[in-house]
Amino acid sequence: MHLTKQAIANLDNRYRAHLINSLSGFKSANLIGTQDCHNQTNLAIVSSVFHLGAHPPLVGMIIRPHSVPRHTLENILSTGCYTINQVNKDIYHQAHQTSARYDKEESEFDATGLETQYLNDFLAPFVANSRLKYAVILKEHHHLAINGTELIIGEITDVHLDENCLAEDGFVDIEAIDTVAVSGLDSYHVTERLARLAYAKK
Amino acid sequence: MHLTKQAIANLDNRYRAHLINSLSGFKSANLIGTQDCHNQTNLAIVSSVFHLGAHPPLVGMIIRPHSVPRHTLENILSTGCYTINQVNKDIYHQAHQTSARYDKEESEFDATGLETQYLNDFLAPFVANSRLKYAVILKEHHHLAINGTELIIGEITDVHLDENCLAEDGFVDIEAIDTVAVSGLDSYHVTERLARLAYAKK
Repeated sequence: MHLTKQAIANLDNRYRAHLINSLSGFKSANLIGTQDCHNQTNLAIVSSVFHLGAHPPLVGMIIRPHSVPRHTLENILSTGCYTINQVNKDIYHQAHQTSARYDKEESEFDATGLETQYLNDFLAPFVANSRLKYAVILKEHHHLAINGTELIIGEITDVHLDENCLAEDGFVDIEAIDTVAVSGLDSYHVTERLARLAYAKK
Repeated sequence: MHLTKQAIANLDNRYRAHLINSLSGFKSANLIGTQDCHNQTNLAIVSSVFHLGAHPPLVGMIIRPHSVPRHTLENILSTGCYTINQVNKDIYHQAHQTSARYDKEESEFDATGLETQYLNDFLAPFVANSRLKYAVILKEHHHLAINGTELIIGEITDVHLDENCLAEDGFVDIEAIDTVAVSGLDSYHVTERLARLAYAKK
């Protein structure tokens, strides 16, 4: 089946959103924890968190300013910090629910029953129910004029994880802690490992 | 278990690479097909492809200029086009092997046995063995000075997929076509759907 550029342009908006969101492949499922300068907490599921570099440890994400995580964006820009919390199969329903359009003064923590957790005096709240989470300091944000999205780049500082999932070589077995993957806009998946492959040589 | 910023900075480089690459969660597995102006083909596995927007249909990826996909980057900048091909469980070994350091005049297609496919007169080669693939036109590239990586933004033009995996609402069942997910640097996974969740409302 072949969909041309013109055919894609002519699709209904919602249909196109489902289709195009499926093309990049499996996505990460992360909850972004923030708060504003009045301790109002916010939590938003984001599927566009991506690895940017290990040394220094950097993580990127894309936020659409007019979509639900706009309070997240505002809080990150005003406080300069946030937490990233991997979503596991025990909390994926609640995580998805954070994408509803709550008002600024409503906390998605309260609305969904996910618990805040404050660790090592970091300003932004963690999700107690997440089994791999880390503190992030905002380093840069870039406005991508091509479609009005924002690229947020942060440095990973403190990592909190279950010791049992950390392998001898530094690999974290995120499957063992039931981390989920996302496809499209709304499909959640657990995984089954095929293999870890050796470093490829000619 | 708590790893501080200082503890992370003190880690062995390879250990840190495994650890930090695990933190963002599951990643997409895609093969990037390109060729240069002398029809020399190139193929590279990239786990940093991400959805950027549906209207216009945009896809982003991060490339580290000094890593293996540098020929990919050169070809994209010189020809302005590339293909993105989802990796499925039948070809993940070969896909991983493209990350070996082949010389510029060696094609990873030949080296791994993956077959080129040319569709609709698009200059860049597709992977015949991939079941979801699309043509991409380079729109922008941004040098990220913070760690010397390049953000490549492209517009999706022609999409080629198995009709059976396309749902009525535009969602593509990438699990049904055995698309794999990646964790860390070298772990490949198939998936099992938990659910598609309804659009979240208050």
